[in-house]
Amino acid sequence: MPDPTNTKQAVVVGAGLVGALWTVFLARRGYRVDVYERRPDMRTAGYAGGRSINLAMSVRGWAAIDKAGIREKIEKVAIPMPGRMMHAVDGERTYQPYGKAGEAIYSVSREGLNLELLHIAAGYPNVHFHFEHRCADMDLQRPVVAFENVRTGEIKTVAAPLIFGADGAFSTVRYALQRTDRFNYIQRYIDHGYKELHIPPAPDGSHRMDPNALHIWPRGNFMLIALPNADGSFTCTLFLPFEGPVSFEHLSGNDAVLDFFNRYFADAQPLMPDILSDFWKNPTSSLVTTQCYPWQWQERILLIGDAAHAIVPFYGQGMNAGFEDCTILDTMYDDYNGDWSRIIPDFSSRRKQDGDAILELALRNFIEMRDLVADPMFLLRKKIAANLHERHPDFMPVYSMVSFSNTPYHVALREDDQQNDLFRQILALPGIEQNWDGAEVEQVFQTWMEERRRI
Amino acid sequence: MPDPTNTKQAVVVGAGLVGALWTVFLARRGYRVDVYERRPDMRTAGYAGGRSINLAMSVRGWAAIDKAGIREKIEKVAIPMPGRMMHAVDGERTYQPYGKAGEAIYSVSREGLNLELLHIAAGYPNVHFHFEHRCADMDLQRPVVAFENVRTGEIKTVAAPLIFGADGAFSTVRYALQRTDRFNYIQRYIDHGYKELHIPPAPDGSHRMDPNALHIWPRGNFMLIALPNADGSFTCTLFLPFEGPVSFEHLSGNDAVLDFFNRYFADAQPLMPDILSDFWKNPTSSLVTTQCYPWQWQERILLIGDAAHAIVPFYGQGMNAGFEDCTILDTMYDDYNGDWSRIIPDFSSRRKQDGDAILELALRNFIEMRDLVADPMFLLRKKIAANLHERHPDFMPVYSMVSFSNTPYHVALREDDQQNDLFRQILALPGIEQNWDGAEVEQVFQTWMEERRRI
Repeated sequence: MPDPTNTKQAVVVGAGLVGALWTVFLARRGYRVDVYERRPDMRTAGYAGGRSINLAMSVRGWAAIDKAGIREKIEKVAIPMPGRMMHAVDGERTYQPYGKAGEAIYSVSREGLNLELLHIAAGYPNVHFHFEHRCADMDLQRPVVAFENVRTGEIKTVAAPLIFGADGAFSTVRYALQRTDRFNYIQRYIDHGYKELHIPPAPDGSHRMDPNALHIWPRGNFMLIALPNADGSFTCTLFLPFEGPVSFEHLSGNDAVLDFFNRYFADAQPLMPDILSDFWKNPTSSLVTTQCYPWQWQERILLIGDAAHAIVPFYGQGMNAGFEDCTILDTMYDDYNGDWSRIIPDFSSRRKQDGDAILELALRNFIEMRDLVADPMFLLRKKIAANLHERHPDFMPVYSMVSFSNTPYHVALREDDQQNDLFRQILALPGIEQNWDGAEVEQVFQTWMEERRRI
Repeated sequence: MPDPTNTKQAVVVGAGLVGALWTVFLARRGYRVDVYERRPDMRTAGYAGGRSINLAMSVRGWAAIDKAGIREKIEKVAIPMPGRMMHAVDGERTYQPYGKAGEAIYSVSREGLNLELLHIAAGYPNVHFHFEHRCADMDLQRPVVAFENVRTGEIKTVAAPLIFGADGAFSTVRYALQRTDRFNYIQRYIDHGYKELHIPPAPDGSHRMDPNALHIWPRGNFMLIALPNADGSFTCTLFLPFEGPVSFEHLSGNDAVLDFFNRYFADAQPLMPDILSDFWKNPTSSLVTTQCYPWQWQERILLIGDAAHAIVPFYGQGMNAGFEDCTILDTMYDDYNGDWSRIIPDFSSRRKQDGDAILELALRNFIEMRDLVADPMFLLRKKIAANLHERHPDFMPVYSMVSFSNTPYHVALREDDQQNDLFRQILALPGIEQNWDGAEVEQVFQTWMEERRRI
């Protein structure tokens, strides 16, 4: 039980990625941390679900890992993906680097990373885990939280002067805040669902495709992706509308599923020997986005990670954004001398625009991934952008800004709008396919840069 | 207790305006209706809060009242308001009719109307009221609803094959649906709060201002309104931002309040002898809007009224929209031979666009009421629109379409966009102030009508 005379104590709701990492940060600051998690302890019980799309760790994630001093333990299970490999319907492959030489995003197993973070957190004597405890009720006025032991049904009421809600997209802490006056809230499901599939290792244990790439089969309104795992396998995810002409509702039998894969993913299907059993065994899951404001209540309760800003996975930034929350909070802890009554409301008001921005960027990137990457003009744009990036160090493509820098997301979103404008002009130049690195491009670019400086 | 062998039974959650009216419709169809309401029985306990802004009953409201066969009882407490009376800062008054001669919206007391509807519903032997019963939990799978007796704490679990959630903007039924997969939900508070004030009758019992008008003091970003009551008084409502240069946060003492009213509402203040005590006694309330989809669950649970579409009060359509829900459902009951498994999903998918449209129209009307009605060009537009309406029967101003017709709200919203376009052209004509009914106006109007016919 927390000692009410010790003011350096906190409750963290949720022991997922962000909850576990934030617990490490708090523990390093000398806090007694009580962590409540609905699921069993994955260190003994194995991984029990939640979202399983593989993670793509990028610079923001690593920054938090570094700040927590645990890079070494995480790095050993991460596979670098310096670019995307696009698979056309005819099987032709096109490789496109994500950034400059040496830059990559990293495929990481959600389970492996979560497990590692729990081990690290549990190494602190001042961290106390309470697994299989569901947040059942919150009395915001006192404030106390009631946790139900999901095995016994027993209710434990915990006085909690400082609460971090890291309990994900369906956050119970946020549901409690939702009932408070003037709390704005949006939950929106996209029209697409997803299903996980699997490419096992080759007989010799090697990867059946290039492991150093994020593989994409863009098909307009839907797509398949594959991320490498350390054991030689790939985790594949099919993103497809729930309803409509080509949709999950029409994949109702073995023939329909095989026809669909033969038609659209002919080069991937032979790599998936268990495709039918995987397809029927794995659920068709929905994808929710949430936005809310404020992220805090009376300077004592703060939502972080998906609980504050659940996004779609198409920019690979969900975890990175949640980890960046931890980095920012830990920095503010120094700046504000540990005064939570200032940190919490300031974080809520400053960080909100970044949560909204990465949601918008992730929705835009879905269109890019599933559709535009198969468009020659879009590939040309990427080539020109990379070229400009090489020649002008102060021009950074938005993907790089998001994935390879710590620039605030809201700045990256504004940049995306401006660069869209730039490339509308550049791609309209006559003969741009041939003169993609010519003087006209440079001229348009210089004028655009001039205008930006003036704004 | 409902008899499970009787299939003609329904649970209505909420005995507010829409819940009570819908209960009457169901009772007339021979349903056993169990109505659960959190608040005490207002027939014995008096009115216990919730929103109290006066109601403006218009054609959609009357249509439902007519269909339920209870016009006579309601009409006797309604005061016709055929137009708005604008009060300028210097006290000058401008009257503007809402529609043609004979058309009016009606000021109705929320309490009086609700009471009347409860009496009418209670007249049916097949209606059973359960007051002071809070909807505590819903098990959507079985489905059962748990109601807590708020006096005793006792929990009663009710099997409910057919549930209507008419429990308002903070609907507990909707909160249960919110947790179901792919349920989209938005709750958004506007930046303004409101406070109710009071103009008592004159010593001789008469109204201190013209009772046959909705009075508005438009002041740009804020406003005061007053609606007449049958007892000679007016209910006033101040709409003002919570924060900002002129806002509730700055009205922190008697002097500030009196200065504010002296400055902005100098002609109204002398009519409000209890202004200070009212100001401090009455709460500053927030204004929430909600949107959700679907409005139903498994063809057995349906949200109606504010539970499905809570809007701001600026078009006087909140109750009217909820009553229209009842009219439409009752019509569908005939069309579909009482087959709820078809009525419920069809209503949800067809009516959703109307809920969204009246929200958008109400938000636009806030700007109109608080700001534009003080703008000479806007008044000119109204005059021209009325003139066109007189001369061309197939041209109906949007206000008339919303308030004096049963045209679906989504059609009215589309019309609003188109008429905004028309009046941008008309008001740009040179000398329009003088030639507001000239040949050029007619020419622009005819061209616009031609184009619409072609679309």
